[in-house]
Amino acid sequence: MRLLADRACVRGQEVSTDLIKRALKMAEDILQQIFEYVDQHFDDHLAATQRYLRQPSISTENLGIQECAEMTAEMLRDLGADAGLVPLKGGHPVVYGHLMSRNSDRTLLVYGMYDVQPVDPLAAWDSPPFEARIVDGRIIARGAINTKGPLMAFIHAVHSIQAVTGDVPVNLIFLIDGEEELGSRHLPQFIEQYTDELKKADAMYYHLPLETVKGHPQVSLGFKGIAYFELTVKTLLTDAHSMVGPVVNSPVWRLIWALNSMRGADDRIVIDGFYENVRPPTEEDERLLTDLVDIWGPRAFKEMYGITEFREGLDGLDLVREAIFAPGLNIDGFLSGYTGPGPKAIVPASAMCKIDIRLVPDMTVQEILDKVRAHLDRHGYGDIELRFVTGYDPARTSPKEHIAQAAVRALRRLDAEPGVVPILPGTAPQVLFSEPPLNMPFVMSGLGHGWLLHAPNEYFEVEGLRACEKSAVALLYEFADA
Amino acid sequence: MRLLADRACVRGQEVSTDLIKRALKMAEDILQQIFEYVDQHFDDHLAATQRYLRQPSISTENLGIQECAEMTAEMLRDLGADAGLVPLKGGHPVVYGHLMSRNSDRTLLVYGMYDVQPVDPLAAWDSPPFEARIVDGRIIARGAINTKGPLMAFIHAVHSIQAVTGDVPVNLIFLIDGEEELGSRHLPQFIEQYTDELKKADAMYYHLPLETVKGHPQVSLGFKGIAYFELTVKTLLTDAHSMVGPVVNSPVWRLIWALNSMRGADDRIVIDGFYENVRPPTEEDERLLTDLVDIWGPRAFKEMYGITEFREGLDGLDLVREAIFAPGLNIDGFLSGYTGPGPKAIVPASAMCKIDIRLVPDMTVQEILDKVRAHLDRHGYGDIELRFVTGYDPARTSPKEHIAQAAVRALRRLDAEPGVVPILPGTAPQVLFSEPPLNMPFVMSGLGHGWLLHAPNEYFEVEGLRACEKSAVALLYEFADA
Repeated sequence: MRLLADRACVRGQEVSTDLIKRALKMAEDILQQIFEYVDQHFDDHLAATQRYLRQPSISTENLGIQECAEMTAEMLRDLGADAGLVPLKGGHPVVYGHLMSRNSDRTLLVYGMYDVQPVDPLAAWDSPPFEARIVDGRIIARGAINTKGPLMAFIHAVHSIQAVTGDVPVNLIFLIDGEEELGSRHLPQFIEQYTDELKKADAMYYHLPLETVKGHPQVSLGFKGIAYFELTVKTLLTDAHSMVGPVVNSPVWRLIWALNSMRGADDRIVIDGFYENVRPPTEEDERLLTDLVDIWGPRAFKEMYGITEFREGLDGLDLVREAIFAPGLNIDGFLSGYTGPGPKAIVPASAMCKIDIRLVPDMTVQEILDKVRAHLDRHGYGDIELRFVTGYDPARTSPKEHIAQAAVRALRRLDAEPGVVPILPGTAPQVLFSEPPLNMPFVMSGLGHGWLLHAPNEYFEVEGLRACEKSAVALLYEFADA
Repeated sequence: MRLLADRACVRGQEVSTDLIKRALKMAEDILQQIFEYVDQHFDDHLAATQRYLRQPSISTENLGIQECAEMTAEMLRDLGADAGLVPLKGGHPVVYGHLMSRNSDRTLLVYGMYDVQPVDPLAAWDSPPFEARIVDGRIIARGAINTKGPLMAFIHAVHSIQAVTGDVPVNLIFLIDGEEELGSRHLPQFIEQYTDELKKADAMYYHLPLETVKGHPQVSLGFKGIAYFELTVKTLLTDAHSMVGPVVNSPVWRLIWALNSMRGADDRIVIDGFYENVRPPTEEDERLLTDLVDIWGPRAFKEMYGITEFREGLDGLDLVREAIFAPGLNIDGFLSGYTGPGPKAIVPASAMCKIDIRLVPDMTVQEILDKVRAHLDRHGYGDIELRFVTGYDPARTSPKEHIAQAAVRALRRLDAEPGVVPILPGTAPQVLFSEPPLNMPFVMSGLGHGWLLHAPNEYFEVEGLRACEKSAVALLYEFADA
């Protein structure tokens, strides 16, 4: 479906300009018919999406997981897929199935997730998290945008294509994760078991609406990795009266000094070798970055995160480059001693902090954990316990890949000019697919705006859901095309 | 009651050795009779002490405060004192009263407190905190040792003296605080109102059993002061997804760097001028310290606080000197971000810590707060909020004071050789009495062992309570003596 007016060769075969024009017209007519089908049936799609969002599926609490997995498989079977649940030892099942095209030898692996985050603090929701009420043009629900809503949009896109054409434009392999919010802990087990089948896919697609509140669409070609761990120091058997402060080793001071030794007041991370595997942005990356200033620049951050000040006055392109290509040493939480109201004078027995290091290519989780451990030992903090919590390596796909170009063209077809994000600063388990044995290119895209992921009042705009369905339709046709 | 065998002059009057011997014998006979009275009536005293401990009086929760104040006043009236409640605007009442001696022109101000700490965590008590059960020779109760138990011991001591002699050996002014556990916030109001009356006292006494678990008795001549405050940093409007970590100012990192700038990994406090008003120990102090190695040395700390390691290998006399004469910069608590189980990847919006600085003579609360503020400002942390919570200045009395020597002799009379502690490393509001307008010498002493102040299962040994009564008897006679 590329605009081929200047070309006279399709799949190696000479064709007349006239034939091309007619073929293009026909294809565009089909797309238009499918978009119209989406519009005509959107009320039903919306109602079905609400029903799906009403089924709780909190993986960390094992709440509604089995029910939601079965509901998801049933929906795939309704499309004609041979879908079912694949149990994972010690984990939640993967919903897995195939839907073959009669007219294509191209195969897309469709990644999705049916699990969601917990809902606390419940009291902060304006509308109950599993009622999926529509308020002011937004579907309010846990999972609305992250990512049961977009998964439903993809399923409805496939259904609409089938209703109009009687087929699907490419072969689809569905892999719907039930543990994404737990770090997809058991997914490697699945990939090992199904390597041969998964290898049949040419690329992996994650239908993830990335439109900002300002209506900037994005196509993303990568994720940062993450190494999440806890540091714990214990120097006393119990909290002690603070009168002993002058003579004992305080765990909270030790933790402060240890952290300061890793990143001092000049804001530089000084863990030995921290940056040695960081792959700098290429010239092509720099060109992409320039286009992203509206999306990843100061205004967007301010609006989406309530951030008023940036580190060291970062601005414009520098801010975007740092957000996307810099690894971070972030403290997620710190707890020691008495933190209630009023005075309580103690030397705490212990102190702990939670840290995430966002990894950029070619950093790895294991390499960074080893470096942090070595740093602590070398600086006299051998007593500080480092406990690994969760992690992925980073993953990215070249913008030259067919799937990447298809994703960009799909959005253009819907009059959306996307920014191409080389690496989303967040994290998802795409590395499990991009690295051996699968070595698969992948992309995340999709129209529509939603927000408040992991937070109260998570939402997906109703019109965003409609656009999201259409963008999946366009993606499948663009991917089918040579 | 000093041992006068080698002296021939009492209150400037020549007396025969024979007369002295007879006077001493008589006095000792009286003391023995009082001690016997204590022993004979101890079951009643113990029961009355339990009754008093069963009356809750948690000042921070205003639980039972009025009832306990009235109960305390009633007990003083039973001794013949003109006791009543003095209301303090915005605070809990002081129980105040006089009990005059027919034979003495010496006056002792008796400080005590009827309020106690909260009981949480309630589930950690082996016996309910306001049942005052006796378990394995210990009275288990909130307030048992801190300090309703010792206050009852003092009252029973006075009662026993009266029962045997029909008088008290010195004039007594009772000042029983209802807000010690709140930092005696409104006590200055009382002192201002009653300055003229309080000035009639020659010294102030706080009956505070200081016997360690090893049976080492102590007389204490001072308290450290305390400046307790909170530091708070807020750099974001709300917690942000940690993907923004590389580009925003993290409040928890800022707090770590600010704290590190005050006390670095070499363990030295480097706030400008921090030590400039610290009065070093005198030669006399050093002599006292040498005698305290058993009480304030490593073994005692290890047993009482479960402390296994000291800062920089401190030991012996150095440990004691540091514990008693060094100010400390202690972090009581630190809280930022997510501290529950598992991963949550955020840049926290804010971070806070609680700090106490233990002040030694001649440091003051105001001076230290000003220095911390100036330090933060000078190091670029003007945005860090410093909120004062509570504080006292330090206070100490010379070991040459009559009350100090009387306290030592009183314990010796009970075959206890006390360590003399120049400054207790903890804090109490004695500075309100030792500084203008009262300028009063003061001392804390008393026999008996109890422990777990502010903690579950606070206790006072039953035999400690008995010894505590006798030590108050002896103190009053020694103070009465020239």
